[in-house]
Amino acid sequence: MNQENPVGLPQSEFDLIRRFFADLGPTRADVLLGVGDDCALLEVPAGQSLVISIDTLVAGTHFFHDCDPEAVGHKSLSVGLSDLAAMGAAPAWATLALTLPRPDHDWVEGFACGFGALAETYRVRLVGGDTTRGPLSITVQVHGLIRAGAAIRRHGARPGDLIWVSGTLGDAALALEAIRQGAPVDAGLRARLERPVPRVEVGTALRGIATAMIDLSDGLAADLGHILAASGVGAEIDLADVPLSPAVATEVASRADWTLPLSSGDDYELCFCAPPEHASVIRSLAAGLGCSLSIVGRIRPEPGLTLRSPEGASLTMKRAGYDHFSAGA
Amino acid sequence: MNQENPVGLPQSEFDLIRRFFADLGPTRADVLLGVGDDCALLEVPAGQSLVISIDTLVAGTHFFHDCDPEAVGHKSLSVGLSDLAAMGAAPAWATLALTLPRPDHDWVEGFACGFGALAETYRVRLVGGDTTRGPLSITVQVHGLIRAGAAIRRHGARPGDLIWVSGTLGDAALALEAIRQGAPVDAGLRARLERPVPRVEVGTALRGIATAMIDLSDGLAADLGHILAASGVGAEIDLADVPLSPAVATEVASRADWTLPLSSGDDYELCFCAPPEHASVIRSLAAGLGCSLSIVGRIRPEPGLTLRSPEGASLTMKRAGYDHFSAGA
Repeated sequence: MNQENPVGLPQSEFDLIRRFFADLGPTRADVLLGVGDDCALLEVPAGQSLVISIDTLVAGTHFFHDCDPEAVGHKSLSVGLSDLAAMGAAPAWATLALTLPRPDHDWVEGFACGFGALAETYRVRLVGGDTTRGPLSITVQVHGLIRAGAAIRRHGARPGDLIWVSGTLGDAALALEAIRQGAPVDAGLRARLERPVPRVEVGTALRGIATAMIDLSDGLAADLGHILAASGVGAEIDLADVPLSPAVATEVASRADWTLPLSSGDDYELCFCAPPEHASVIRSLAAGLGCSLSIVGRIRPEPGLTLRSPEGASLTMKRAGYDHFSAGA
Repeated sequence: MNQENPVGLPQSEFDLIRRFFADLGPTRADVLLGVGDDCALLEVPAGQSLVISIDTLVAGTHFFHDCDPEAVGHKSLSVGLSDLAAMGAAPAWATLALTLPRPDHDWVEGFACGFGALAETYRVRLVGGDTTRGPLSITVQVHGLIRAGAAIRRHGARPGDLIWVSGTLGDAALALEAIRQGAPVDAGLRARLERPVPRVEVGTALRGIATAMIDLSDGLAADLGHILAASGVGAEIDLADVPLSPAVATEVASRADWTLPLSSGDDYELCFCAPPEHASVIRSLAAGLGCSLSIVGRIRPEPGLTLRSPEGASLTMKRAGYDHFSAGA
């Protein structure tokens, strides 16, 4: 050893950055050991299953480099909570792997603020992480809990089930279009893109009611397609019943194109199926939670997804794409 | 909707890539639902704690862009298994978030092969993941199980405990130096850098024996420093007892510099403390597992880390760096 190259215990800028993540989210009795050892130690109560999902957001792919770091922090946790909601699970813990080009304190403080606020809302404790140098990217794993056997999966949809959707569809995609075009963006629309609200309360309330559920990250057509494939059924959607905000309704009408609400990403609403006899319970549930839940169609025994336009035309899609478009089919 | 912009269920190149990860590692009865829904569903047995760790490897930061993808796959799982080993936990499941600049089938096949082989060895099932487009980067979360209360943490070291290290130190750092210099690299040394073997069997065998343990990813001085800080103790290390391969021993002698074995990264060996009366049990354990375990020093009540050179000089380090270097102190 020589003094030009002393052995020092490192206290790098990245170590300082890590301090922002030492105490995010509420303390929880089921966290035996959180941030700061080789691993976190967690307690899953007897009779509960562990529910996990991991998602990455990459700068330039999933968000703009100049996006408000608070919004990036919010969204990086929100997309995982949306996955937990889609299983009916209650959120519990999160881990965060953050890759940064440089130790930018202001950016990280904003990010931690957005992440932490959502973590408080849903009682999620950050229990571990890794901070590394590289192109800006965020990976979050969420961990939830649900009574064994109660998880709502994709494979339970049955012919006759009604298909429901929460909120409105296509708003995030419309905001993204406007931002890309450099056009002014309504604050409410922008929030749908940058700060999606995970439908956690709706998801957990649908335990024992929904037969299949998914969250909408790739658009209703593709994501409902996953339920249909897993359940071995088909569906028809009445386009007139697809819930749209006034802004998206205007665009759909003027473009005569349903891409925004049907096949665009980032809705983070829930799509679920339930037998018709549960409709009134679901309506009361929506009223109680202050979240609109709309019937958009029904499950059919025949494979394929048929979209009925308000004018009576229908488009049948098979798994790999659309099949035909014919009036009155 | 118009036919120029049909609603298609996406079957992108990235979807094809995901197929490589549908079935990695052995099937396990505790995986209720693996890859392919919104979340994975997992069963933690009653009386066991869940042990988790998340790590990111970034191309250009943690591995060379032209590194064998099989080695990258191996290492991306290995570093997490090393963390589990450091707690004494048995590996169970992993999740993988893979970010790729383009859907390169050959690279992904090699990666999955390296990841999958290590997963088979340690009975780890890949239960979930995310594949996205962006600069090459891999985040893996590992999940292990350990009897409640049995995890080996960092804070249990007591004055008088002996300090042990598995394997030899500094080999990975020497390989990295050679690769950076474009010099020929011995295959064994290269393997220490690119395909570290996680000390899972050693870690689990030390339950009830080790009072504190950590895996060596940032060098013995820094990582032992974490044990000392967490335990509120100090330590002395006899440099003559630090286990070195012949290649590293030669470099240390010719450079008169202990940086390679003391403060370089990527050793992925275990450093642990145990009362002297456990020494014979630990020696039999080492013999049984075919893994060398060496006593390198002892825990002292006074804070700070003292390094005694073979010539009798000593260097005392405090938390933020070295303190003084004086003969015979």
